[in-house]
Amino acid sequence: MTIHSKTNHCKIVDCTVRDGGLVNNWDFSIEFVQDLYESLNESGVEYMEVGYKNSPKLLKSEGSEGPWRFLNDDFLRKVIGEKKKTKLSALVDVGRVDEADILPRSESMLDLIRVACYARDTEKALELVSLFHDRGYETTINIMALSNVMDNELNESLAMIDESPVDFVYIVDSYGSLDPDDMRYLVEKFRRNLNNKRLGVHTHNNLQLAFANTLTAAQMGVELLDASVYGMGRAAGNTPTELLLAKLTKPDYNLRPILGMIEKHMIKLREKEEWGYLIPDMVTGALDEHPRSAMGWRASANRDKFMDFYDKMTTPEVFHGK
Amino acid sequence: MTIHSKTNHCKIVDCTVRDGGLVNNWDFSIEFVQDLYESLNESGVEYMEVGYKNSPKLLKSEGSEGPWRFLNDDFLRKVIGEKKKTKLSALVDVGRVDEADILPRSESMLDLIRVACYARDTEKALELVSLFHDRGYETTINIMALSNVMDNELNESLAMIDESPVDFVYIVDSYGSLDPDDMRYLVEKFRRNLNNKRLGVHTHNNLQLAFANTLTAAQMGVELLDASVYGMGRAAGNTPTELLLAKLTKPDYNLRPILGMIEKHMIKLREKEEWGYLIPDMVTGALDEHPRSAMGWRASANRDKFMDFYDKMTTPEVFHGK
Repeated sequence: MTIHSKTNHCKIVDCTVRDGGLVNNWDFSIEFVQDLYESLNESGVEYMEVGYKNSPKLLKSEGSEGPWRFLNDDFLRKVIGEKKKTKLSALVDVGRVDEADILPRSESMLDLIRVACYARDTEKALELVSLFHDRGYETTINIMALSNVMDNELNESLAMIDESPVDFVYIVDSYGSLDPDDMRYLVEKFRRNLNNKRLGVHTHNNLQLAFANTLTAAQMGVELLDASVYGMGRAAGNTPTELLLAKLTKPDYNLRPILGMIEKHMIKLREKEEWGYLIPDMVTGALDEHPRSAMGWRASANRDKFMDFYDKMTTPEVFHGK
Repeated sequence: MTIHSKTNHCKIVDCTVRDGGLVNNWDFSIEFVQDLYESLNESGVEYMEVGYKNSPKLLKSEGSEGPWRFLNDDFLRKVIGEKKKTKLSALVDVGRVDEADILPRSESMLDLIRVACYARDTEKALELVSLFHDRGYETTINIMALSNVMDNELNESLAMIDESPVDFVYIVDSYGSLDPDDMRYLVEKFRRNLNNKRLGVHTHNNLQLAFANTLTAAQMGVELLDASVYGMGRAAGNTPTELLLAKLTKPDYNLRPILGMIEKHMIKLREKEEWGYLIPDMVTGALDEHPRSAMGWRASANRDKFMDFYDKMTTPEVFHGK
């Protein structure tokens, strides 16, 4: 069945390169990124997040990561060439970005800069937001790990955000632990506390609820919907872009070009790299824990010992805190 | 996060052997079925559907299918040995079951017999239900392909069902095309039209909404929740049993034994057999079509040609009806 006019306010932010880069150390070929840009554009997707704009001076470079980890404007200009309808976005982390790296928007390929932070760093994040705003960009603030923030702290953050120039405030389910009821609660809470802001949502698929949570948010009026092609993203991955295109009835959306992208690139990639519904990620999602324990487990020789992982995660003597 | 007391009325019906058998031609070893029974029992799962009770005389046997396709009471008694808390269920299809094959419940290992039918066969299905009811079984009627039934026909079916002795009436999303709004609509409709019946739900995961749809139904008071371990079921598969165990807070439920089942059997099995989120199944789900076209496509040399499949399914000249 289809979701009708209730979601025509939505815009998709495809995070395949940025969040998917956490899976393959940003080892995407130029052809991959060009094909992705073309297919997103033809599918009517409004934004493509093409990487991180952190500084290699402030975040230890491994030397082996792909170029989408530390986006360079000249490089990006060569890759994308001519900008089409789909706008470009980059993510920065608080404390990891060099302000001097961010050109004025008029000289940049980027349209949207998103600042990710924990609630405790809201003030620092908003300083960055103001700077990017003054340089002409659309901006978002993405507060991570909402399921682990105490209400008084979150309320303070939201009050500061409401006074800032940021355009969009994200509800981020970092641990993939939320269900549609939780999402409804958070959208209502953000609405109550933010008089002047538009909302976005970023979900993870640990409990196979990423798409359902995103639909819930969309139907409640949330505008920016993060997704990635074939769900590629850290650990359990994200809401699949193709499901949003298939389900939202916005007249501009077209599923077919993204199916071509999946056919040409994603099936092979998924054979080489691992993301999606995996039992250790399901366990951390159900326990409302950071996925790092699950990712570490999958990288070990015990990767398929699910009962041992469950025991480790649920035995207080073994697992002290997060 | 957890779903609290709102779902303590629920019971899980694990369909791994029955619906999963559609994937591997019921080629489950006796050890697999014994381990599954043990782990479901230890996990607190209320029902295990151990196969089909159709007759090989009325449904052409291929000769190659496993014994769970045409359940034999003596065989089942040897396999299960001692019955524990988890009850046993079998499914029959209208026109495919020989009444003489169904022992009185007092002489059988089975507790629950479920009758699957299309809306047009409701009357025949209810004759079977009455017979099984008289022989002492709990009974359900599972109307398939609800998303393709006209309302007047469904209303007639429900009126007949309400007068019958059947215990549970299932909402079945055969095509995996429903979303949580559709599920809410159907639960309300079934409630309005059925004064004396309890409800069950069976979902498919074509749009990654199987679990969300099942949770929606559960929160609205639906009692029997179909699921299968690691989601194993035809095409896109079902709601994963492990997600229900992780998410419902019924005190009897325990996730750990099912993780052991997945670890011991399901990972290997998934490497050999295919089910779960696959693009052709996503396309048939989005188009509200029977999964057979997707399954046929996946069995062909074009299995990864997603754009061609999409074109075939959306071009009226090529695709005439269902």
